[in-house]
Amino acid sequence: MVQNSLIVQKEGDGRSTKVPRNVNLQKLRNGYLFPQIASQELQHLEKYPNAKLISLGIGDTTEPIPDSITLSMANYAHALSTAEGYRGYGAEQGNKELRKAIAKTFYKDVPVKDTEVFVSDGSQCDIARLLLLLGSNVTITVQDPSFPAYIDSSVIVGQAGDFEDEIGKYHNIEYLGCGPQNNFFPDLKSVCRTDIIFFCSPNNPTGHAATRNQLEQLVEFARDNGSIIIFDSAYAAYITDDSPRSIFEIPGAREVAIEISSFSKFAGFTGVRLGWTVVPEELLFSSGFPVINDFDRIMCTCFNGASSIAQAGGLACLSCEGLEATASLVEYYKENTKILVETVASLGIKVYGGINAPYIWAHFPGKKSWDVFTEILEKTHITTVPGSGFGPGGEGYIRISGFGHRENILEASKRLEMLFT
Amino acid sequence: MVQNSLIVQKEGDGRSTKVPRNVNLQKLRNGYLFPQIASQELQHLEKYPNAKLISLGIGDTTEPIPDSITLSMANYAHALSTAEGYRGYGAEQGNKELRKAIAKTFYKDVPVKDTEVFVSDGSQCDIARLLLLLGSNVTITVQDPSFPAYIDSSVIVGQAGDFEDEIGKYHNIEYLGCGPQNNFFPDLKSVCRTDIIFFCSPNNPTGHAATRNQLEQLVEFARDNGSIIIFDSAYAAYITDDSPRSIFEIPGAREVAIEISSFSKFAGFTGVRLGWTVVPEELLFSSGFPVINDFDRIMCTCFNGASSIAQAGGLACLSCEGLEATASLVEYYKENTKILVETVASLGIKVYGGINAPYIWAHFPGKKSWDVFTEILEKTHITTVPGSGFGPGGEGYIRISGFGHRENILEASKRLEMLFT
Repeated sequence: MVQNSLIVQKEGDGRSTKVPRNVNLQKLRNGYLFPQIASQELQHLEKYPNAKLISLGIGDTTEPIPDSITLSMANYAHALSTAEGYRGYGAEQGNKELRKAIAKTFYKDVPVKDTEVFVSDGSQCDIARLLLLLGSNVTITVQDPSFPAYIDSSVIVGQAGDFEDEIGKYHNIEYLGCGPQNNFFPDLKSVCRTDIIFFCSPNNPTGHAATRNQLEQLVEFARDNGSIIIFDSAYAAYITDDSPRSIFEIPGAREVAIEISSFSKFAGFTGVRLGWTVVPEELLFSSGFPVINDFDRIMCTCFNGASSIAQAGGLACLSCEGLEATASLVEYYKENTKILVETVASLGIKVYGGINAPYIWAHFPGKKSWDVFTEILEKTHITTVPGSGFGPGGEGYIRISGFGHRENILEASKRLEMLFT
Repeated sequence: MVQNSLIVQKEGDGRSTKVPRNVNLQKLRNGYLFPQIASQELQHLEKYPNAKLISLGIGDTTEPIPDSITLSMANYAHALSTAEGYRGYGAEQGNKELRKAIAKTFYKDVPVKDTEVFVSDGSQCDIARLLLLLGSNVTITVQDPSFPAYIDSSVIVGQAGDFEDEIGKYHNIEYLGCGPQNNFFPDLKSVCRTDIIFFCSPNNPTGHAATRNQLEQLVEFARDNGSIIIFDSAYAAYITDDSPRSIFEIPGAREVAIEISSFSKFAGFTGVRLGWTVVPEELLFSSGFPVINDFDRIMCTCFNGASSIAQAGGLACLSCEGLEATASLVEYYKENTKILVETVASLGIKVYGGINAPYIWAHFPGKKSWDVFTEILEKTHITTVPGSGFGPGGEGYIRISGFGHRENILEASKRLEMLFT
């Protein structure tokens, strides 16, 4: 995942164009987190060519996609070579059938129309498109720690001020500290209003799923302030308890929320690329103009529909057989996560998450995340993700992913036991 | 392709948020061109439910994908259900093998490295990502007429001023008039410098492929002015004569050009979604910072790789068998286009293009494009694209697409003959 890192800056080179570099790109700190982790893995393997590296870092699925789903994709691909089965451009918003199936499957008890569902090539891309839609004149709030694409894309679009090294934060971005001290949910009374609030539940990286009461507070806060919540439910399938799986379970959310979600983590579609975004018709800009109209325009102009083959796979995921098979996949990763939670907890390390999400948030008080990351990598050949990569609120933590082959999870547990006992 | 057009603005509705609508989105005129055309088709079919509509409008491929290519995609999909064949996230820049094959196939005589090739889900998306990369503080030039995504995405990113109805142009955008009067290439001596120059060859919509001499002038102009050319070669496979197929055939281009291209039109991948962008290492911002580094950051942060199945198909396209099969596909559409050129020309209508591109640019002096579009649609049940949809320079023209089943092309020719004789 790491490329071109060797292109050395040639400041003032005579061959430079006169085109100024985008000041927003200039504000970004370091590379994007996950390619950085991939780069660390590669470097480690160069240093220890015989090491059996176990990746509990990037949240990448490892288990095969159920064959009823791959069969649908293969059949769709085959049909593209026949006169009857060939299809060119699809609707930019996604195939109608798939939009209906998403609305019916994930929003069956909440009022989401199929025309409010926009199929995409994944949540990370939708985050960028939503921020492009909103433009540089809006202010944003993120949970701290949070999935780094929210902040990085926001910086790229021009919503952020400069980065302040001392506090590890960008100016003009509100950071909602979410940790064990506040049950991973801030006291909203002390939070400043922004236009946009990114909120991820079950949370990446902390693994915490917001309770119904917490989400009710969030929706009320957005309604009182006229803010828009961008709710990321990519890990909703991992919820074990009765935490809401969609922001639209909360009354009043349709007027203040957008939801982004994905097939990546429940169906193993990380490489196939398929996600969706729900924009309710009732969501209006201050002028009364419907947000859905602008999102539609963005999808038509800056995107051109998700791969038709991936969409055929998505539809198969949502059949009875597909739902059953993907539920087993989720169970597998949940069992992995449970094993890791028990291991890490048994070592006297305080762990969070891991019940409603495939991520464990392990606390090493007084230590630096990158130091813990490096120590674990050096001594056990296991990659994790340093919590500070998700924001200053993640300092002292590491994120451990439950994605992996079972034998690797068991082996990783043994290695961690040896390291910490 | 048309959705949500019925959401009525509810200005000042009590339920509005306090989030301002992006002023850039507000500047856009009408919807995006191609969904508008699709909407016209739907309306026409509602009016004439029994009409046998022939679409020579949106440039959408109609012929099956060669089966060696679909087989590769099907096999890849099947393998995703096996322990050995499963793959999760791929490299954000594309699979290494595919990047190599693209460099080797399309740039074999020009110095393009595989690490300079970024695989994507299509050119339209890359246009938006490139403009996002460049930010709102650059100025742009487009050919007039031009593919509407250049201008529309530029407006969305904030590079354009207001639209002026009287002249049909946005302020702050330079329009290079390209028509038969100047052999579809402007006198660059009278052109103002901008940071970015979009240039499409073979051109959509005019079908003109720029000559080597024209492209040499363009590169020299960019070098003299320190501009960056974004060269769109999506139709390069349709070139019949010795016009350059890549901007990188022109000496000196590596320091001033980016190239975007696509599998859509030569392999029938419009629905599969696969394209690429070449960013040479030598291309530098005014500070000397390499553009490729920022593009890499955008691809990692705002994109997450093209569908792995589509990439497997792309690789199959570039095998010997795949190249041969896709060449036949291109020949088929070229023959279609030839039939249409001959028909239209025989009717005394002046036609351009159609030799190096699957588009015919037909001139109806003194008439309005939309009137001609409507007349043809009403009287022959054939959709085209009104030239004015591509910019004020397209007024008086219509674009006729050579994509279609042969029998429809022949039938369309008959209907056009009946209309115009």
